[in-house]
Amino acid sequence: MKYELYYWPTIQGRGEYVRLALEEAGSSYRDIARESGRGRGVPALLSMMRTRRVARPPFAPPYLKAGRLIIGQTANILAFLGPRHGLAPREEGGRLWVHQLQLTLSDFVGEIHDTHHPISPDLYYREQEKEALRRTAEILKRRAPKYLGYFEDVMARNGRHARYLVGARLSYVDLSMFQVVAGLGFAFPRAAAKWTRRYKRLYALHAQVQERPRIAAYLASPRRIAFNNDGVFRQYPELDLAGG
Amino acid sequence: MKYELYYWPTIQGRGEYVRLALEEAGSSYRDIARESGRGRGVPALLSMMRTRRVARPPFAPPYLKAGRLIIGQTANILAFLGPRHGLAPREEGGRLWVHQLQLTLSDFVGEIHDTHHPISPDLYYREQEKEALRRTAEILKRRAPKYLGYFEDVMARNGRHARYLVGARLSYVDLSMFQVVAGLGFAFPRAAAKWTRRYKRLYALHAQVQERPRIAAYLASPRRIAFNNDGVFRQYPELDLAGG
Repeated sequence: MKYELYYWPTIQGRGEYVRLALEEAGSSYRDIARESGRGRGVPALLSMMRTRRVARPPFAPPYLKAGRLIIGQTANILAFLGPRHGLAPREEGGRLWVHQLQLTLSDFVGEIHDTHHPISPDLYYREQEKEALRRTAEILKRRAPKYLGYFEDVMARNGRHARYLVGARLSYVDLSMFQVVAGLGFAFPRAAAKWTRRYKRLYALHAQVQERPRIAAYLASPRRIAFNNDGVFRQYPELDLAGG
Repeated sequence: MKYELYYWPTIQGRGEYVRLALEEAGSSYRDIARESGRGRGVPALLSMMRTRRVARPPFAPPYLKAGRLIIGQTANILAFLGPRHGLAPREEGGRLWVHQLQLTLSDFVGEIHDTHHPISPDLYYREQEKEALRRTAEILKRRAPKYLGYFEDVMARNGRHARYLVGARLSYVDLSMFQVVAGLGFAFPRAAAKWTRRYKRLYALHAQVQERPRIAAYLASPRRIAFNNDGVFRQYPELDLAGG
């Protein structure tokens, strides 16, 4: 099936978790808002959320068009793609567990996003910088170690398969974890330098995913948007310093 | 199957979305942390997240024990229960759509929670009251209307079935929407008085769910914990006033 991904064209954001899964699957997909012309670009992205012709409009990007289905919410898209492309276990218990980990990672990403937007996504960073400093200190000191420690422990419990989060094969949540580790390194290089030594399994997973042939090819291609300060992970040195 | 729900015993919180689904399904379940004795209570709740005997420990409550499965993350639990108990469509497109709406509602609940905890869940409200006032003003003026308007529109698009969010039958996301509408009325009575007139379909859904026999019986029973200021929805009059 040829997929159509709809996401903001200039950031990795939440769309990146979907892009990584599509790339690792070797899927044929179009990144609609990054193309130009009729039925493409940001107007196409917005139109699908507003038109009366769509019975089930998504609340926000990313969303994926797969045949007649329009699927929204990052973790929901991954739950759809996973079993179709060998990126999730086939049996129910395994599928639920991968999805549960993905939702926990989504919660972490939401908290990371709010480091620079603790008051509202509708205000600029500079309008909430004071609150952002306070929130980021809490995230870096308490919340991030809680999440990272949890995922490190999940890997350890995976026993002899401890190279992956779940079972003996790569799943979509490994790809998402790669992205989070990469993002933390971009946004909080000072804090991340400590984490590299502390969460060895997660950082080994990051290194391993990065070297998979399809992911390596993707990262080197123009399809990979660079980290920048419009996405979820943003580089404000004053926030990194707030971690103490 | 006899289910075991694990959630904090003194609040509705995120466990309430699971409780409502189990009650409407007429399921036999035990609310483990509200019982006392060996293998029950809060110690049992915490133990399952920490013991080495569990291969796949949840990050946080609520979680559901169903036979040998331990399922965490509210929306994941509902996605598991829904098709088993007639609370979600059977075909894939419908199941994905209900889950997508549930995840969007989870995002909204996360933002509501952060009205009183914009800096950290690890600090008391009084330690972040100033930031809470500012965040709540944004939520009440912009974010809540955006979410509520979206769900009202989803109901309208459901056409002649506009009594429900999805299709011609009640699904778990209708139960969750009931809970959110009830919670907003508790936390923000002033703001909610306006919303009652504006989001007529959502408030009609709330009234309708409340009168379903099993839900009505549940709400009147001691199994329903009352709203209180330790949960997600909290009554701080100064925050309600922040909505202007």
